Amino acid sequence: MNHDPDIPVRVQGSPLVESVPVDLPAPSLNDNTADLDRLCRSLDQRGFSPTRIAPRRMDELVRKIRAEGLSIRAIVGYASTHWEILDVVANSPGGALFGLALDLGSTTLVIRLIDLGSRKTVNQLTVNNPQVKWGEDILSRIVFARNPQSLLVLRTALVQACSRAMRKVLEDSGVPASRVYALTCAGNTAMSHFFWGLDPSHICREPYIPAANTFPTVYAAELGFDFLPASLLYLFPNVGSYVGGDILAGVVAAGLDTSIQPRMLIDVGTNAEVVLGNQEWLLACAGAAGPALEGGVVERGMQAVSGAIDRVRIDRKTLEPDFRVIGDSKAAGICGSGLIELVAEMFSSKIVTIQGKFNTDIDCPRFRHSADGRAYALALSSQTLDGGEILVSEIDIGVFLKSKAAMYTILSVICRKVGLDFADLEDIYIAGNFGNHIDPEMAVRIGMIPDLPLGKYHGIGNSSLLGASMLLCDRTLLTEVERVRNMITYVELNVNVELMNEFRGALFIPHTDPRLFPSVQAP
Amino acid sequence: MNHDPDIPVRVQGSPLVESVPVDLPAPSLNDNTADLDRLCRSLDQRGFSPTRIAPRRMDELVRKIRAEGLSIRAIVGYASTHWEILDVVANSPGGALFGLALDLGSTTLVIRLIDLGSRKTVNQLTVNNPQVKWGEDILSRIVFARNPQSLLVLRTALVQACSRAMRKVLEDSGVPASRVYALTCAGNTAMSHFFWGLDPSHICREPYIPAANTFPTVYAAELGFDFLPASLLYLFPNVGSYVGGDILAGVVAAGLDTSIQPRMLIDVGTNAEVVLGNQEWLLACAGAAGPALEGGVVERGMQAVSGAIDRVRIDRKTLEPDFRVIGDSKAAGICGSGLIELVAEMFSSKIVTIQGKFNTDIDCPRFRHSADGRAYALALSSQTLDGGEILVSEIDIGVFLKSKAAMYTILSVICRKVGLDFADLEDIYIAGNFGNHIDPEMAVRIGMIPDLPLGKYHGIGNSSLLGASMLLCDRTLLTEVERVRNMITYVELNVNVELMNEFRGALFIPHTDPRLFPSVQAP
Repeated sequence: MNHDPDIPVRVQGSPLVESVPVDLPAPSLNDNTADLDRLCRSLDQRGFSPTRIAPRRMDELVRKIRAEGLSIRAIVGYASTHWEILDVVANSPGGALFGLALDLGSTTLVIRLIDLGSRKTVNQLTVNNPQVKWGEDILSRIVFARNPQSLLVLRTALVQACSRAMRKVLEDSGVPASRVYALTCAGNTAMSHFFWGLDPSHICREPYIPAANTFPTVYAAELGFDFLPASLLYLFPNVGSYVGGDILAGVVAAGLDTSIQPRMLIDVGTNAEVVLGNQEWLLACAGAAGPALEGGVVERGMQAVSGAIDRVRIDRKTLEPDFRVIGDSKAAGICGSGLIELVAEMFSSKIVTIQGKFNTDIDCPRFRHSADGRAYALALSSQTLDGGEILVSEIDIGVFLKSKAAMYTILSVICRKVGLDFADLEDIYIAGNFGNHIDPEMAVRIGMIPDLPLGKYHGIGNSSLLGASMLLCDRTLLTEVERVRNMITYVELNVNVELMNEFRGALFIPHTDPRLFPSVQAP
Repeated sequence: MNHDPDIPVRVQGSPLVESVPVDLPAPSLNDNTADLDRLCRSLDQRGFSPTRIAPRRMDELVRKIRAEGLSIRAIVGYASTHWEILDVVANSPGGALFGLALDLGSTTLVIRLIDLGSRKTVNQLTVNNPQVKWGEDILSRIVFARNPQSLLVLRTALVQACSRAMRKVLEDSGVPASRVYALTCAGNTAMSHFFWGLDPSHICREPYIPAANTFPTVYAAELGFDFLPASLLYLFPNVGSYVGGDILAGVVAAGLDTSIQPRMLIDVGTNAEVVLGNQEWLLACAGAAGPALEGGVVERGMQAVSGAIDRVRIDRKTLEPDFRVIGDSKAAGICGSGLIELVAEMFSSKIVTIQGKFNTDIDCPRFRHSADGRAYALALSSQTLDGGEILVSEIDIGVFLKSKAAMYTILSVICRKVGLDFADLEDIYIAGNFGNHIDPEMAVRIGMIPDLPLGKYHGIGNSSLLGASMLLCDRTLLTEVERVRNMITYVELNVNVELMNEFRGALFIPHTDPRLFPSVQAP
């Protein structure tokens, strides 16, 4: 279910930035229009109107016009209400324009450098979000940042880390920063507040009102990216405290907003965020389904990075496991997709019961007694990096089943809100690193996702980054994002009796109601 | 002919800045609009739309909204295409809003602090333009500033001097800088380029094309006025290299653009700049008529400051002079208006002939022989600061007559360009310090200005500062200034035979053609 990150899925329009060849009429005593007014007039005649120039860019641009002898290319950036004149360059072919897309994740920051002409990814880099130092979870950071000084500390750390990463991506690609004319950024609501320097404290306090949901188009230098003097910065807007710009970017990346049939986007991070809808309506909800799925809670759980077990098969007869390790190294732990496959295979091999307990009726060579009680040895000492066995306990399985049940419950509830059956869904996009690794057949087998034809499931990778990349290449999305923002309704998942019954049924493998999973054969 | 600087002549509209009381609806789970979006929505409903907030102001504004408990006043600034949300303050009456008007003169900088509610001048300060250090005349400064580094030197000196003067004006008035929300500035084209940091080198080089003629509305902080965090800055546009924002401000101050009958504005500085027109057309020209009139060339000439002789009467019988000294001190020299009166009185007393030569047929006790030849002793040793006599030589008179002839010639030529007689002019406004001091009767007597009913002449003071002050109090002028800018035609005064004949006739007192000055009696 891998997705090629090079190809923005639905990009059809023109990029945010255009290079416009302009032959300025020679100044004369009969036409004493000023240099900059002359440039604006020419661009106006070409349909780029109205135009604006930043005060601090004016002198440099005038000197370039004069230096190039009036035959120039103007680099103009789209800013909804006007075109910003970003630069003046020699009127010669070539000279590619570049854009940077930035995913402001709470754990990692991802930078992608894109050639706006070819729409190809030139280079990409993932770095850690240094704010983790002030709190792994976003809530701790919000509490820390409640006064302006602490907010500045968090903001500075973030901007500096982004700057370093961007400079590195540019350097490694041999692209000068002066050729970057657009920076698109998407993050959740709290990250957007940190990035912009806005008080985040009301995001997590009833009635959960952000300081701002929309952000003007500004120069990147205005937010501290001084090394990008000619670049505009676009930050994806938020719907509210629980639905941020990252989700909006994902909705656009998955094309929910253009579909006639209903589609679903599932983004698994610390929370599971789900959007359901089509070109006419969109419903979003969020719930705590994520940690175990991302490998965060289970004893030997880890993110889907080098050293993580991400594929598992268990021999039905010997009950011995076979697995794959990301990066072909020895194993360090198990990631979300590995856990899904492990539990699915343990279930199909009758090692665990429908309740998620070890089947004590069988004799399995991999059963162990650990400090947490009974466990299954997935990897032996000889197969691991630290030389200890990788054990998965009944407690681990229980934690995991709660996450998968929460996920299934969210999906059920959001569909029921609009009177849809799962079968009505045309396509389901699973975002995140997680989405790229899981095998939907396995996820269906444990009852985490609905039992639908597997072709309906699509891994879409980092959909926040993908949406930001697509905006770089298609400026019509700027308007579309605002339309989508106004269209999304956030649904609060109130913990009531109905929801709890739903959840309890989903705690089983695959479910207490087998009719919901006709394709899953009882082992 | 003094003009009260407190009363902007034609201000009728509303000021550039408004204080809008807003009761924000309480946020709730049912209305999760973000704080800033909520503020924008409320302002929109009040007719202030669209609105914008500077990125760096956002956090402070959100915190103020929360601190004031949602019942606030929003301070909004008019920026033609939108309203800028400048500040949020407590919702209580009082709390005046202030604006600063700045005249960017090449010799002096004048700051006026205005209470935008009462439209009264609170305080005013004139300081020297420190750029004089790099050249008394603007041409030397343009040559000096041809590379970006030197331009920055000139710009920094200017901005620092303006900042110091503004801070002093505010401090002396007890007005905090945070209550200043608008700064309007007007200067000639070169000064505007220095102020904004734009290459001025093409202003004085054929075909005389400025870098920019129009300037966007920005935050004062963007141009270096960091102590004014919430103030917008408006720089008057230029028509071209020879007609700058100071003249545009003057045209608006004198109301040329609203008059049905043609009016004339005469601004005497280093150059004499003249605008003629009405609400439908405007013609501008400039010529080197100024220096002697401002007291700059004559041996004992000086500006109209303390110590300058500005009024002269000569007894027709004794031929002894009587004079007034500005500041009631002993005399240090003679200013432009003093020279006009001296020459007029010498002519009426037959001390000088119609050709401006001393009348050797009479016996005058004040005749002297100086190093420059024959001279008239206007002040005796006992009357002067330096204890020497103040002598005015035939050479001085010759230089002066060239200036007055140039002035009359410019006025003649510009009227003839549009087929008008002087008698068609409804009103004539004389700007500058000069305009406040001269007695039009005297100026007519020597043939410097047309022989019209004296009631048609009005001293308008610093018309650049007045126009800037009026803009603070009437935002409709922002559009009007742009209309006037597009309406003004600059007329080049080509030195041709006709012009030279005109000039030669005007070199006499009052003129070779006495029919042009019927009210002036032959002595």
